[in-house]
Amino acid sequence: MRIGVLTGGGDCPGLNAVIRAVVRKGVEVYGHDFIGFRNGWKGPIEGNTKPLGLDQVEDILTRGGTILGSSRTNPYKVDGGVEAIRKTLAEQQVDALIAIGGEDTLGVAKRLTDDGIGVVGVPKTIDNDLGATDYTFGFDTAVHIATESIDRLRTTAESHHRALVVEVMGRHAGWIALHSGLAGGANVILVPEKPFSVDKVVEWVQRRFEREYAPIIVVAEGAVPENGAEVLLTGEKDAFGHVRLGGIGTWLAEEIAARTGKESRAVVLGHTQRGGTPTAYDRVLATRFGLHAVDAVNDGDFGVMVALKGTDIVRVKLSEATAELKTVPEDRYAEAEVFFG
Amino acid sequence: MRIGVLTGGGDCPGLNAVIRAVVRKGVEVYGHDFIGFRNGWKGPIEGNTKPLGLDQVEDILTRGGTILGSSRTNPYKVDGGVEAIRKTLAEQQVDALIAIGGEDTLGVAKRLTDDGIGVVGVPKTIDNDLGATDYTFGFDTAVHIATESIDRLRTTAESHHRALVVEVMGRHAGWIALHSGLAGGANVILVPEKPFSVDKVVEWVQRRFEREYAPIIVVAEGAVPENGAEVLLTGEKDAFGHVRLGGIGTWLAEEIAARTGKESRAVVLGHTQRGGTPTAYDRVLATRFGLHAVDAVNDGDFGVMVALKGTDIVRVKLSEATAELKTVPEDRYAEAEVFFG
Amino acid sequence: MRIGVLTGGGDCPGLNAVIRAVVRKGVEVYGHDFIGFRNGWKGPIEGNTKPLGLDQVEDILTRGGTILGSSRTNPYKVDGGVEAIRKTLAEQQVDALIAIGGEDTLGVAKRLTDDGIGVVGVPKTIDNDLGATDYTFGFDTAVHIATESIDRLRTTAESHHRALVVEVMGRHAGWIALHSGLAGGANVILVPEKPFSVDKVVEWVQRRFEREYAPIIVVAEGAVPENGAEVLLTGEKDAFGHVRLGGIGTWLAEEIAARTGKESRAVVLGHTQRGGTPTAYDRVLATRFGLHAVDAVNDGDFGVMVALKGTDIVRVKLSEATAELKTVPEDRYAEAEVFFG
Amino acid sequence: MRIGVLTGGGDCPGLNAVIRAVVRKGVEVYGHDFIGFRNGWKGPIEGNTKPLGLDQVEDILTRGGTILGSSRTNPYKVDGGVEAIRKTLAEQQVDALIAIGGEDTLGVAKRLTDDGIGVVGVPKTIDNDLGATDYTFGFDTAVHIATESIDRLRTTAESHHRALVVEVMGRHAGWIALHSGLAGGANVILVPEKPFSVDKVVEWVQRRFEREYAPIIVVAEGAVPENGAEVLLTGEKDAFGHVRLGGIGTWLAEEIAARTGKESRAVVLGHTQRGGTPTAYDRVLATRFGLHAVDAVNDGDFGVMVALKGTDIVRVKLSEATAELKTVPEDRYAEAEVFFG
Repeated sequence: MRIGVLTGGGDCPGLNAVIRAVVRKGVEVYGHDFIGFRNGWKGPIEGNTKPLGLDQVEDILTRGGTILGSSRTNPYKVDGGVEAIRKTLAEQQVDALIAIGGEDTLGVAKRLTDDGIGVVGVPKTIDNDLGATDYTFGFDTAVHIATESIDRLRTTAESHHRALVVEVMGRHAGWIALHSGLAGGANVILVPEKPFSVDKVVEWVQRRFEREYAPIIVVAEGAVPENGAEVLLTGEKDAFGHVRLGGIGTWLAEEIAARTGKESRAVVLGHTQRGGTPTAYDRVLATRFGLHAVDAVNDGDFGVMVALKGTDIVRVKLSEATAELKTVPEDRYAEAEVFFG
Repeated sequence: MRIGVLTGGGDCPGLNAVIRAVVRKGVEVYGHDFIGFRNGWKGPIEGNTKPLGLDQVEDILTRGGTILGSSRTNPYKVDGGVEAIRKTLAEQQVDALIAIGGEDTLGVAKRLTDDGIGVVGVPKTIDNDLGATDYTFGFDTAVHIATESIDRLRTTAESHHRALVVEVMGRHAGWIALHSGLAGGANVILVPEKPFSVDKVVEWVQRRFEREYAPIIVVAEGAVPENGAEVLLTGEKDAFGHVRLGGIGTWLAEEIAARTGKESRAVVLGHTQRGGTPTAYDRVLATRFGLHAVDAVNDGDFGVMVALKGTDIVRVKLSEATAELKTVPEDRYAEAEVFFG
Repeated sequence: MRIGVLTGGGDCPGLNAVIRAVVRKGVEVYGHDFIGFRNGWKGPIEGNTKPLGLDQVEDILTRGGTILGSSRTNPYKVDGGVEAIRKTLAEQQVDALIAIGGEDTLGVAKRLTDDGIGVVGVPKTIDNDLGATDYTFGFDTAVHIATESIDRLRTTAESHHRALVVEVMGRHAGWIALHSGLAGGANVILVPEKPFSVDKVVEWVQRRFEREYAPIIVVAEGAVPENGAEVLLTGEKDAFGHVRLGGIGTWLAEEIAARTGKESRAVVLGHTQRGGTPTAYDRVLATRFGLHAVDAVNDGDFGVMVALKGTDIVRVKLSEATAELKTVPEDRYAEAEVFFG
Repeated sequence: MRIGVLTGGGDCPGLNAVIRAVVRKGVEVYGHDFIGFRNGWKGPIEGNTKPLGLDQVEDILTRGGTILGSSRTNPYKVDGGVEAIRKTLAEQQVDALIAIGGEDTLGVAKRLTDDGIGVVGVPKTIDNDLGATDYTFGFDTAVHIATESIDRLRTTAESHHRALVVEVMGRHAGWIALHSGLAGGANVILVPEKPFSVDKVVEWVQRRFEREYAPIIVVAEGAVPENGAEVLLTGEKDAFGHVRLGGIGTWLAEEIAARTGKESRAVVLGHTQRGGTPTAYDRVLATRFGLHAVDAVNDGDFGVMVALKGTDIVRVKLSEATAELKTVPEDRYAEAEVFFG
């Protein structure tokens, strides 16, 4: 068989580990052939390829990002996109595809399978918000980096008796905030799933100051105040057309300063959360995903995605996988609330 | 309620995170009182206590080891041990115990419960060899540290065209070797579960050299050669009464050098694998274990251990938990073999 | 002797290492007595003290921040400030002071010495902009953290074919930008010492894209464009009274995007650069500073500051130390320019 | 000009950073041409080359080891070695050499220059024992890694009330032990420069235990006891022909256990100290060394080595550089003794 591989959506530590595992097992165990498509679905649309053999994957296990490049192109939103893919696959004599990506990439994978092109999906999102898998690779690395930053910020907060607001990734799901907040010992954790009361935040902050410690507030970029205040998202343009860095994070730091009279600072971790070498956990998970994805292709089992259930890698229908966003449930948030204030 | 807490067996990153979570939730949510017992089961036997309130757990989340100290004392092997514990608990007005430890500590916890003393267990082992839980805290940290070392050793191996043998922890189970070997891209991984053929190892090593790369061999301290050669364990005394550092690791490095004519070096990671600040993963897992353990005590649900199943924390009977060693299964080892050579 | 110790100005990794070395040598070698003053010069003004003996410094070597707290209070700008200090010192029977801080703190130390109060200074600034010492502690840690972030950002930039602008600390001197830019392999480094041409930056960025790599631009927060465009500093309030995060960094990312048509993102490292455990380099330097500072006090050699010259710790007059800001010289910047584009 | 580049002796983090800087400046600023020789002096002897242009150095700044490989071959100890080099240089039309290495490599560089072949040296040793330069790159990385390990071992030592002996590199000079011991807060530091009294070590260890802390002893592999006990070096063969891991480290741990009755463990950091990505400090130093080395070649200034003096990179005669081993002086060791016990 000749198998095409591509990576779509935002980059994520562990993508290269998946690619390496796919190629190593595909070539050495099954005797398959591989070709890379560059920049997500753009690659097969434009016929933009990259050789993908044992040599190309030799040194990439530990590297962040993706050697194949990425994009957010959707062939179903490009005129003649699907036909272009069909043509490229025919020209390149590609029998099947492995698509590594998030909700959008996997959604396309599902539709292409329905349209007769054999695709196996590998779930990827640092946000951990994909249903049908316990965890996605990249998430542990993001949490690790955020936690290291919180560890560093604690001493500076305490030396200056300041409140420190740390804005982490998570537009629709608060997993990174929840886990890094728990791991970093945050005094308040705010997630998109649960609009927050500024009064309550201020109360927790005050209580912390009274005990002579400095409060650390971890806030997901998509968290919103209950009062309905309109807060820009990090990366959005403000009224003057300027991109804003620090949406809810800077807003909240100002609120806290205004209401408590204490110094307050915001830090926006931004893109540092998604780059660089993956943690050991993510390397193992990504490697196992890759091994099982090439098994599925070899079995001709298309329209599925590999997923983690407990300690097992299983296959789930792509339709099931992309059905619903996995958000932080009430009981998990309640666990963290024990540590507030 | 007044609850006693102790930590037993080898130390492990995350013990303090458990202690903190137990005390925070116990005091702030349930209004319980706590007392620490020093040095494992020795503490309640000798009546050696340590105050354990909110102040004592304030700064310990990120610290390795255990503020309570540890030991391998078993009250059932000490004359009058159990009676001494009973006496201490009565004097200290302790209603229940939370025991954090591995197989031995939890085995004692089970027997004490059978003997009428209420104990809830929290599983701890960097080796990840406890059944009834998907993972134990400390394991991720050990794998993280071993992987960092392998990453470092790779460049030195390649610059000098040497084989590098890395001996990691794992007397009876090869989990650390398996995961750090996968994460570090090892060319051979050897585990106690599967006696290895030196010929086969040499073949993989040679193949690696032929491709102009340098081989990294990750070996669990408890791995043994098929040929039945007697190899000392790291830490055992040799014929002259000297403690040996590097049992199977140095033995194998010498074999490889002798058979391939290539330079070969051994590195024994030893105690560095079990100390220092826990990873974010282990801090979250340990914190959740602590929260759920104090819930169980509050429910009067003794003789149980908290455990991870998928993404949930559940309770399992201590009898079930300590029944069998969880070793690396065939299919997990087979996954790794794809990368050998 | 009874010696008071205080830390002033922005916090910095290594402050605790200085305090520990001062107390260990002072108590164990010279038999002196110590008392801590809280929150910089505010401490002796308000008589706010903290016990400072062997027990208090036992565990602090590896901790960021300062156990004494800090502030930017200047006794010469507070009514009766100097008299209040004199009174506190008399009450507490303090014979001399060790003041650890930057330009402002050391400037006060100098004036107090002139006014008859014996002070020895220890230089501290993560910006490395103090003359009379080769390096200050905290700088190496800041560079280390910034470099780790650049390493992480590189893979994300290349996967998405984006320009990444990293804003680091440095209002008046570009040392952190220079060193972290060199260490991280930045394609452009911009420093306050040399107003930059946006045209030239765009040219370097384009050249990088043409070679199919992604450009990383490291910019000190105090860097300014040649064209005189007014750019807010990170932390300043904009026209609407909102604190801005990402001054020159976000401004430049927008300019690059507008002029090249390529995606461009800004990351502001902010306070993460100044917190957390110090690097080994900074721990050694801070420890040596502390040892030599207490020697100077013991010698009655006041009005001096300890400083690093080559590999030696020497004493320099405080007047000399605070005379001039140490900025990045032309030839050091020219070294880095080799790697632009 | 056409310039040959080689790396000799033990590998060291930062070698690739030197190579990159040499090539970037040589090609882009001076228009020179480069060729790599593989495996130290073996390369020019055997005519074993590797292309070395901008593409080859693109991604190597952050990588440990050396892309050119290394060896300990000495052309003056190989029959016809120097003539072979002369022939290779003529065939390859090489005008000058840049040799990056330690004492041996630079000694050869000196003799070759005397024999009419133009060589510029770049000093390299993780041991920091080369005179004529304040520091060599690789040293800071080794100290950083050793310090991280000591940080990790402290918590395990304290949880188990054990003495922990950490054996670090340094056969003839104790710099790594001194700096990592200071940075890690060691309770005893032992260096080759000063034979140690076991009685005194035991006294410090006891004192530490009495204060209810656990002692950490950092020992350079070349440290020796005063009593003249013969202790194998790590890596030497014992009486039975087996390579020993842990020479002085394991010996000392056994002595401590025997004399104090306390548990005692040894850890040998070994090769982990010399591999992997360099610290920011070493990347900057190595990069600056490379830039100045190619300047010297361009100036035709042969027989010199680049060196760090304070914050400047200068040129020193190779004869001067290799004259004497730089060992830890008395006063630097005395600084550390303040913290013993």
